[in-house]
Amino acid sequence: MPTQTSVSNTVAADLLDRFRAVRAATLAFAAPLSPEDMMVQSCPEASPVKWHLAHSSWFFETFVLADFAAGYEPFHPDFRWLFNSYYNSLGDMPEKKLRASFSRPPLDQILAFRAHVDAAIEQHLESNPPDESLRRIRLGLEHEQQHLELIATDIKHALFTNPLHPAYLPLSERSEEKIAPPVEYVNFAGGLTQIGVSPDPAALDQFVFDNETPRHTVYLQPFALASRLVTCAEYLAFIEDHGYTRPELWLSEGWTAMRHEGWQAPLYWRRDEHTNAGWSIYTLHGFQALDDLSETPVCHLSFFEADAFARWAGKRLPTEFEWEHAAATLPLTGNMLESGALHPVAAGSGEGLQQMTGDVWEWTASGYTGYPGYRPLPGALGEYNGKFMSSQVILRGGSCVTPASHIRASYRNFFGPATRWQFSGLRLAQDV
Amino acid sequence: MPTQTSVSNTVAADLLDRFRAVRAATLAFAAPLSPEDMMVQSCPEASPVKWHLAHSSWFFETFVLADFAAGYEPFHPDFRWLFNSYYNSLGDMPEKKLRASFSRPPLDQILAFRAHVDAAIEQHLESNPPDESLRRIRLGLEHEQQHLELIATDIKHALFTNPLHPAYLPLSERSEEKIAPPVEYVNFAGGLTQIGVSPDPAALDQFVFDNETPRHTVYLQPFALASRLVTCAEYLAFIEDHGYTRPELWLSEGWTAMRHEGWQAPLYWRRDEHTNAGWSIYTLHGFQALDDLSETPVCHLSFFEADAFARWAGKRLPTEFEWEHAAATLPLTGNMLESGALHPVAAGSGEGLQQMTGDVWEWTASGYTGYPGYRPLPGALGEYNGKFMSSQVILRGGSCVTPASHIRASYRNFFGPATRWQFSGLRLAQDV
Amino acid sequence: MPTQTSVSNTVAADLLDRFRAVRAATLAFAAPLSPEDMMVQSCPEASPVKWHLAHSSWFFETFVLADFAAGYEPFHPDFRWLFNSYYNSLGDMPEKKLRASFSRPPLDQILAFRAHVDAAIEQHLESNPPDESLRRIRLGLEHEQQHLELIATDIKHALFTNPLHPAYLPLSERSEEKIAPPVEYVNFAGGLTQIGVSPDPAALDQFVFDNETPRHTVYLQPFALASRLVTCAEYLAFIEDHGYTRPELWLSEGWTAMRHEGWQAPLYWRRDEHTNAGWSIYTLHGFQALDDLSETPVCHLSFFEADAFARWAGKRLPTEFEWEHAAATLPLTGNMLESGALHPVAAGSGEGLQQMTGDVWEWTASGYTGYPGYRPLPGALGEYNGKFMSSQVILRGGSCVTPASHIRASYRNFFGPATRWQFSGLRLAQDV
Amino acid sequence: MPTQTSVSNTVAADLLDRFRAVRAATLAFAAPLSPEDMMVQSCPEASPVKWHLAHSSWFFETFVLADFAAGYEPFHPDFRWLFNSYYNSLGDMPEKKLRASFSRPPLDQILAFRAHVDAAIEQHLESNPPDESLRRIRLGLEHEQQHLELIATDIKHALFTNPLHPAYLPLSERSEEKIAPPVEYVNFAGGLTQIGVSPDPAALDQFVFDNETPRHTVYLQPFALASRLVTCAEYLAFIEDHGYTRPELWLSEGWTAMRHEGWQAPLYWRRDEHTNAGWSIYTLHGFQALDDLSETPVCHLSFFEADAFARWAGKRLPTEFEWEHAAATLPLTGNMLESGALHPVAAGSGEGLQQMTGDVWEWTASGYTGYPGYRPLPGALGEYNGKFMSSQVILRGGSCVTPASHIRASYRNFFGPATRWQFSGLRLAQDV
Repeated sequence: MPTQTSVSNTVAADLLDRFRAVRAATLAFAAPLSPEDMMVQSCPEASPVKWHLAHSSWFFETFVLADFAAGYEPFHPDFRWLFNSYYNSLGDMPEKKLRASFSRPPLDQILAFRAHVDAAIEQHLESNPPDESLRRIRLGLEHEQQHLELIATDIKHALFTNPLHPAYLPLSERSEEKIAPPVEYVNFAGGLTQIGVSPDPAALDQFVFDNETPRHTVYLQPFALASRLVTCAEYLAFIEDHGYTRPELWLSEGWTAMRHEGWQAPLYWRRDEHTNAGWSIYTLHGFQALDDLSETPVCHLSFFEADAFARWAGKRLPTEFEWEHAAATLPLTGNMLESGALHPVAAGSGEGLQQMTGDVWEWTASGYTGYPGYRPLPGALGEYNGKFMSSQVILRGGSCVTPASHIRASYRNFFGPATRWQFSGLRLAQDV
Repeated sequence: MPTQTSVSNTVAADLLDRFRAVRAATLAFAAPLSPEDMMVQSCPEASPVKWHLAHSSWFFETFVLADFAAGYEPFHPDFRWLFNSYYNSLGDMPEKKLRASFSRPPLDQILAFRAHVDAAIEQHLESNPPDESLRRIRLGLEHEQQHLELIATDIKHALFTNPLHPAYLPLSERSEEKIAPPVEYVNFAGGLTQIGVSPDPAALDQFVFDNETPRHTVYLQPFALASRLVTCAEYLAFIEDHGYTRPELWLSEGWTAMRHEGWQAPLYWRRDEHTNAGWSIYTLHGFQALDDLSETPVCHLSFFEADAFARWAGKRLPTEFEWEHAAATLPLTGNMLESGALHPVAAGSGEGLQQMTGDVWEWTASGYTGYPGYRPLPGALGEYNGKFMSSQVILRGGSCVTPASHIRASYRNFFGPATRWQFSGLRLAQDV
Repeated sequence: MPTQTSVSNTVAADLLDRFRAVRAATLAFAAPLSPEDMMVQSCPEASPVKWHLAHSSWFFETFVLADFAAGYEPFHPDFRWLFNSYYNSLGDMPEKKLRASFSRPPLDQILAFRAHVDAAIEQHLESNPPDESLRRIRLGLEHEQQHLELIATDIKHALFTNPLHPAYLPLSERSEEKIAPPVEYVNFAGGLTQIGVSPDPAALDQFVFDNETPRHTVYLQPFALASRLVTCAEYLAFIEDHGYTRPELWLSEGWTAMRHEGWQAPLYWRRDEHTNAGWSIYTLHGFQALDDLSETPVCHLSFFEADAFARWAGKRLPTEFEWEHAAATLPLTGNMLESGALHPVAAGSGEGLQQMTGDVWEWTASGYTGYPGYRPLPGALGEYNGKFMSSQVILRGGSCVTPASHIRASYRNFFGPATRWQFSGLRLAQDV
Repeated sequence: MPTQTSVSNTVAADLLDRFRAVRAATLAFAAPLSPEDMMVQSCPEASPVKWHLAHSSWFFETFVLADFAAGYEPFHPDFRWLFNSYYNSLGDMPEKKLRASFSRPPLDQILAFRAHVDAAIEQHLESNPPDESLRRIRLGLEHEQQHLELIATDIKHALFTNPLHPAYLPLSERSEEKIAPPVEYVNFAGGLTQIGVSPDPAALDQFVFDNETPRHTVYLQPFALASRLVTCAEYLAFIEDHGYTRPELWLSEGWTAMRHEGWQAPLYWRRDEHTNAGWSIYTLHGFQALDDLSETPVCHLSFFEADAFARWAGKRLPTEFEWEHAAATLPLTGNMLESGALHPVAAGSGEGLQQMTGDVWEWTASGYTGYPGYRPLPGALGEYNGKFMSSQVILRGGSCVTPASHIRASYRNFFGPATRWQFSGLRLAQDV
């Protein structure tokens, strides 16, 4: 049986590999962007790419290096408050909307900050760090991956907001159009099931967020899930059946939001009324005709639109428990960031549930609350997840811009019900 | 065994008694108010009392008389759209905020409308009405009671908003101050339990709202509930411990709302900084010193304040399932509208759970969603409850302005988490 | 030569007659309204009629009785702050929007307050009051007349806001349709002229507001004024020529305001798209067909609409100096409140300038600033006019709801350029 | 006597020199800024520097090259709508707030656009261009200088908004502190005077904006102007005399704006409450102690603050006519952009009126309206000035960031009364 130290050392070595890979992935994604691109903050949900690069480094400096790395020299004294996102326990921070004014420090300095932190973490990982430091580094990498996903999400909105609608990358070659198979419903018997995770406190190689804990019993009624995600073609039928003008299909709050915002289609859909060219959809590869994407999962829906579509279809959204129960034994494969598609793709023809992981975050019917017995992390890290447990809705499964190593069946994402800038879509469910 | 008809007839006779009592209670509560008082609409949540008197009559005319009472003559053709609240299926309606402009029809005409509807319903009930009509009359009476409670809630806000802060009724005599007993925690073992109600479709004398259905199985972890509600004195300790300036106690959304609104105490609390007289609390009997109310349950809290208080106290809010499980076998007694107190009163010294019914609506930790298998009522009545199932939080137990015959253990009230104009407070819970 | 005292006594006696007449006129106008009607405050510019009745009495109590009437007993101690409108020097006051919550004091008490003040002023006027008191009573009467006009303006908006659109009074008989004569332009040579008034400080029987002082020299270029006001028919031609969709006709701020507010016609114009009945116009006598009002002056325009119309017509608005120069020698006759029309009427066929007084307030091209050498009244009364001298536009001539004895050629009315709830229209001007 | 053509040729040659100098000055000012700096848009009034560089080139392309330069190839077809600011006659344009999303085209391409336009204009100027083209080039250069001033104004706000408050340029050396001389009042007799300019249509070497025309007669009462601008020390006395909490000093609209915005000092003033270091002022050279700037003119005031200060001082603001009358015969010298101070400096000790040109734009008491007989330029250029003639206040004299060759005694600048991001201050006036 290995000693504790040797276990930690193995974990540290693995973590070092992971650290290098994850940090490199962030920079690789940002590589096609100019310093000017990285300044844009085009909606209240988003941040400039440059800020993401700095903040994800700030996280390691603040929660790892400052606490555990003896002799660590902070890169710049102002960065400790400048790149704080929302951790009130650590002191005041700039208002989020001010991030668009951060022309200084320039990108070069942000990159130097990253390199400085990288070197310090690498050295620290080779210096027999304490277990808590390993845990925080691992948390910092999950945090980094969340911000990598946000970079993809935010730059899509930023480039779309530019009236020229430039692409993040050109569409190198159009893949042959796949046809999504017909929807089937996969039945589940329900009954008692286990939801969430109670990690072994001594197991350093297992990671979950605090909001996935503890593992607990839930009773489910019998239910069925659709075998694949809802497609653009199916959503277009909802639009053409006057889905956006029939109040009986909508939650009251959704009806109000939809009319106030003037929604008539998912975010990034545009109908060219002058040329009769029909609908087109903005992607990270620029605008594409809806005709070329009709079999792909519909994306950039609010919860309200997902819910209205389900009602129109005579179905409903799954709860997060139904989803996790169904996903628990499935492999974590799918169209994720590493595929390079950067957009959902049509489902394949396999048996059973398809597209559970990747493509789009799936809106559930569940509000975001703490599991029974939930305890936030101690200290400032307790602000990571727990303080957002109101007025948010759970999404499951990751999307086409989620790093593959970041997703789990127990992973709980959450956004307000009117949020559309995420790669969010839906899968139907029904009672049986 | 009685025939179906004789059962219906018995139900109709009982319903007639109930109809007369409920409709009379509304008018009795409004009696101390002038036509001018009944014009005031002092916040977006509220409506003028006069509008409530009309709308609750509109409900009977629209859903009962128009559909089932042969030969019924509507009181006024415009009333059908003028007093519609939010039923989009029935056509357009005036914006809610316009209700403050309804000087016409004058109160006299609204009262004549009530009398006209009353006479028609009474005649209809004596004419062997069909079962569906009986069901809708019963629904209309629950609706009437909800609006009676809203009248009490709204007029409190209206009179408080008046810079003179007049009382609804004078405080006839001050009851001797009771001391709330110390809090104890009542343990529950958890496990599988049944939540909600599946009413017998043929049973005309049983009423639940659609959002209480169907009865279904829920698994509970072991838990404990506080034996009584949180008092004003306890809440004052939270204030004096700087509860309103410590972000770690608050949900992020609550912190933002609290600071944006400038909350420093529950709604209706006022501190006289000029005279050092300390805190006083506006009630339907006018302002009273906090010292005279310190043992009574704290009231007019938002969910965010209730949640922050619980975190400060090292406890949590109960889920709606825990609450219902605990309440299921308790008698439905307590300080409700008929007591005439019109304000929460101090807990008594009994064994076990006190104040589960009446005094204040108790915020739970549960968001408002449909139960598994939930189906809204068909037609326009389907808009009654289901379309509000987003971004709302469940409250349980009724308050000091809820009619006693209106409350049930399975009753689900719901408001947005920043709502404070309701008689809303909290009971603490903890894991065991 | 009369002594000073006998002059004052004569003035006091005249003032008593005027006081009785003016105060009675206010009550007479309010007579058709119910206490409920008098509660409505339907837009930020407006106040409830009841508040007007109280505030105009407050003015006499505050500025006359409290300062000059020995032994005067205030009617109610709270009224001194409750019915203050905007005089910061006198202390805090309720926010304007709270006036809609003033169900208490009830109308009966407001009327008793008026009677109490009336009796005290009448007694005071018979007690050899000092000259300053006489001046303030006269100011109070002009103030009362302004509020009478506001009552007419505000109740029109209040009744229109009610979805039933009740009339203030029925249209007793339709007067035979007059045809407005063709427009002619009346030329003025310009040059040096005298604008404003410098009243003799000792002359107690002369009244002007401080903003009309002092009389001063202005140099005018040659100009011409249209012989009558712009009619509804002429304004309809502007609408039908796409006036509301052509940015080149509008000031930039007006274009933004018009689109933000969704204006497509003057306030109170409504086009029935369902019945093809065409345009109708809400008046204090209820809706009337535009066809029946086409020759009457267009009314309830913002400055921006008046300005855009003038540009469309190839003309311009007059300056306030041009207007006053032209009006200085004309009789003060026209369609004012006492005519009972309560709406503009078609111009007659006389020579020269018609409709200079009454019908509609005429927007000018002049911003509201102090005349050279302007000094506000001393003390709190200095807040009456001077503090509003920014971002307002001058209107001249009075309207169909202005009391006839209230208007003067030197009278300067002023409102923000987006204001439409006033009886405001325009007369064209041009260079010569 | 020269022929018309030779006159034009001389004008063209002079214009070429001016064109090169003006265009170079813009780039020189932007030189210390990074592409990232040029992306920031920190308030609704401002635009990114990069946008200014593009738009001022767009102006030449749109109004000169496209209309007059045969064979001109537009740099990029999208730029014609992308960089339109507010000329509705030319078609739709992006919303102003979207300019912060213009990461593409990158700065390099904007600079290439400038070079392309520069080359084309230079070639055009050497090709015997028609007179109208010369007039428009001259207008384009005045436009360019306005945008150079806006670049200085906007980047100051952008860098200040950055929580690090970087300087545009470091303060190379502190000049020795000058003491502003005591204020004296210079009397003017008033009477008839001539205001504005009526340029000779054939004179190509004379430039005024359309809003300075035509020259016309105005009658002035006797008046006096303060010999210098109000200083920071004088303004501090107003603050310390509770100027921001005394409503009697403020216009009603100003009082509301000040309280709503939370103003307690001019923009860019900051009081360090933690260190007792007192007031400091942000400048383009970073923060400086108020003590080091106390004798310099106060700057970044709204009209409301300037007006309140004047009332507190027992004086008033001058009218724009008084100002122009006084300035008409003075030399156009002062602290302007070319001095490099980039901030107002203390007045010298000369005779008569000091600081009439440069240092700060001087708020006047005059609203912005057209002069008698004013005609906007024909076509889209008519939107340059005329459509803003409402709710704006006139400022005179230029500031420390105005190019010296851009200012004239007849120059009318205008902003809304709550505007503070401009280098705006005041000079006192009084009646005599």
